[in-house]
Amino acid sequence: MKLNITVLPGDGIGPEVTAQAVKSLKAIASEFGHNFRFKYALMGAEAIDATGSPLPKETLALCKSSDAILFGAIGDPKYDNDPSAKIRPEQGLLELRKSLGLFANIRPVKAYDNLIDKSPLKRENIEGTDISIYRELTGGIYFGEKKLSEDGNTASDLCEYSRMEISRIAHLAFKAAQSRKKKVTLVDKANVLESSRLWRKVVTEIGETYPDVNLEFLFVDNAAMQLILNPKQFDVILTENMFGDIISDEASVIGGSIGLLASASIGKKYALFEPIHGSFPQAKNKDIANPIASILSAAMLLEHFGLVKEAKIIQKAVEKSMELAITTPDLNTSNIQVTTTNVGDFIEDYI
Amino acid sequence: MKLNITVLPGDGIGPEVTAQAVKSLKAIASEFGHNFRFKYALMGAEAIDATGSPLPKETLALCKSSDAILFGAIGDPKYDNDPSAKIRPEQGLLELRKSLGLFANIRPVKAYDNLIDKSPLKRENIEGTDISIYRELTGGIYFGEKKLSEDGNTASDLCEYSRMEISRIAHLAFKAAQSRKKKVTLVDKANVLESSRLWRKVVTEIGETYPDVNLEFLFVDNAAMQLILNPKQFDVILTENMFGDIISDEASVIGGSIGLLASASIGKKYALFEPIHGSFPQAKNKDIANPIASILSAAMLLEHFGLVKEAKIIQKAVEKSMELAITTPDLNTSNIQVTTTNVGDFIEDYI
Ligand SMILES: CC(C)[C@H](C(=O)O)[C@@H](O)C(=O)O
Ligand SMILES: CC(C)[C@H](C(=O)O)[C@@H](O)C(=O)O
Repeated sequence: MKLNITVLPGDGIGPEVTAQAVKSLKAIASEFGHNFRFKYALMGAEAIDATGSPLPKETLALCKSSDAILFGAIGDPKYDNDPSAKIRPEQGLLELRKSLGLFANIRPVKAYDNLIDKSPLKRENIEGTDISIYRELTGGIYFGEKKLSEDGNTASDLCEYSRMEISRIAHLAFKAAQSRKKKVTLVDKANVLESSRLWRKVVTEIGETYPDVNLEFLFVDNAAMQLILNPKQFDVILTENMFGDIISDEASVIGGSIGLLASASIGKKYALFEPIHGSFPQAKNKDIANPIASILSAAMLLEHFGLVKEAKIIQKAVEKSMELAITTPDLNTSNIQVTTTNVGDFIEDYI
Repeated sequence: MKLNITVLPGDGIGPEVTAQAVKSLKAIASEFGHNFRFKYALMGAEAIDATGSPLPKETLALCKSSDAILFGAIGDPKYDNDPSAKIRPEQGLLELRKSLGLFANIRPVKAYDNLIDKSPLKRENIEGTDISIYRELTGGIYFGEKKLSEDGNTASDLCEYSRMEISRIAHLAFKAAQSRKKKVTLVDKANVLESSRLWRKVVTEIGETYPDVNLEFLFVDNAAMQLILNPKQFDVILTENMFGDIISDEASVIGGSIGLLASASIGKKYALFEPIHGSFPQAKNKDIANPIASILSAAMLLEHFGLVKEAKIIQKAVEKSMELAITTPDLNTSNIQVTTTNVGDFIEDYI
């Protein structure tokens, strides 16, 4: 298969972890005779420094001309602590999601047998957990109108949803549940929010057209609790943008490290693959960041194009690395130092 | 001391747990020669059934004429699953909070030594946790304009904050930190939301006037993760309404049961005390609901009026009940059935 892949390493640890993912994709290509071409472009704080914009026009154009995008991470503390900055790295990612119509962010959450004891949660509570989170990614409070009053004393953000925005991701979630444990849990705050009531209404209607799938509802506050108390109750979680952001980062504790969680952002035309972790600036250039989330994002990319066997090999390589404790310091308690590059090299060799 | 207390038992398990809290307040009154008068009023789904309104005028008037309010719980599944219901129980609680100006909701989160093993989290991760969450309660997306388009295809909620709303609760949080571990963590999403950037700006300014308190920032997604990974890092958490709702329910897992978490909602003039758990309709009238959160809310009421010794006795009684495993089924794994009433009776006797 021929694939043009745009690589956006981004900020912080983004470049380091993405480099490992590219290595495993190259190994897959040479092993299976695929033709993967990689082009690199600037995004985030790096792009602001170089061009003044967090998403330069050339970057967007390159993304639109490619089959898939592999993205690293975004964000820099120098913007976080400056509430009045006009240009910020995150705008680049949000604009990219919006411009490419990447409305569904899919985040698998699993408890890996070999890592279960690294989790802050007790083994018996998480063993066997296998959740797929469907987070709406181009609507809600992230993209609604933002206002700051002239005197700077009042600020607002609008959370808005349309039936169309809800229904297209709901269909994906129900379809996913059909080939899983046949359960969708809608997470909302329908007892308070008008937008959540629309979610509940539309998803209920759509649910009726998937009679083999069980639909349940959970208020977001309760969901945040249930996710820790009893994660095994979940199969597919469907939710809006902001709740999905919170819930999926929270869910990362189940696997023991946020450095393990990959995600796919899917639209009608384009697809982007990224770890759910952030730019983790404290770890930048130290060769200690966990590349697994990025490598598993590459596996999701392969799956997306039907290269299921290839994706499985990467997943197996990842599991092997855990079994042999070839893991970065976030997961490794032994004395032997394993670097980001070491993990990437191991996976490459295994493939 | 003479106190007029309005009791709003509300829905579901509200009446059962509130009854136990009233029992302990009565025991305190007779032990210390205080004069506590209790008046009861309707609220929530019960009030809708009886009067058509979730917060009848008489209820609000009674609250305004009393020194403090003891509230049970609100919510009924028959409204949750009807997204087009015009009148819903939760409106009563929101209207009450707004009408009484209860802008600060204070939620203490503690790991109790005798219950630590009931938590889904490992002992070493939570031992010694002692957090106080300051949640803004009368602003943000809960109270911003709500819209549903005429064709019913678009819905929105506005999240709005003013400098005044942020600063009054920020001052409370910094003051609380001064008599604790001197750390405030602001939880926001300043990399995306305009309202969060205003929070960050105002809280930073106010922080400078409390040089003895250390101010830190955390994005809400990261906070949801850190709260489970390492809850001991927190002292006072300050946050807006919606994030506070999610984060504090999530934090309940630290103590092993949401049935333990009390809260105080404070304004300039009025104060209301309530468990953070919901109406838990499945447990209604079964005498199995945990009354501790409601009883500890009564203790917070006493503290609020400077009755520190009295509050301490209730807290001690609660700890004793845990030590002796006189706890409801959510916390009790032994064969002996302990009811809601049993727990209330034990605490009453202890006092
Ligand atoms: C960087 C930030 C804007 C982003 C988000 O909130 O969506 C990130 O947290 C994520 O989850 O991908
Ligand atoms: C019942 C509901 C409206 C309420 C809230 O969201 O504030 C509850 O969850 C709480 O936390 O007190």
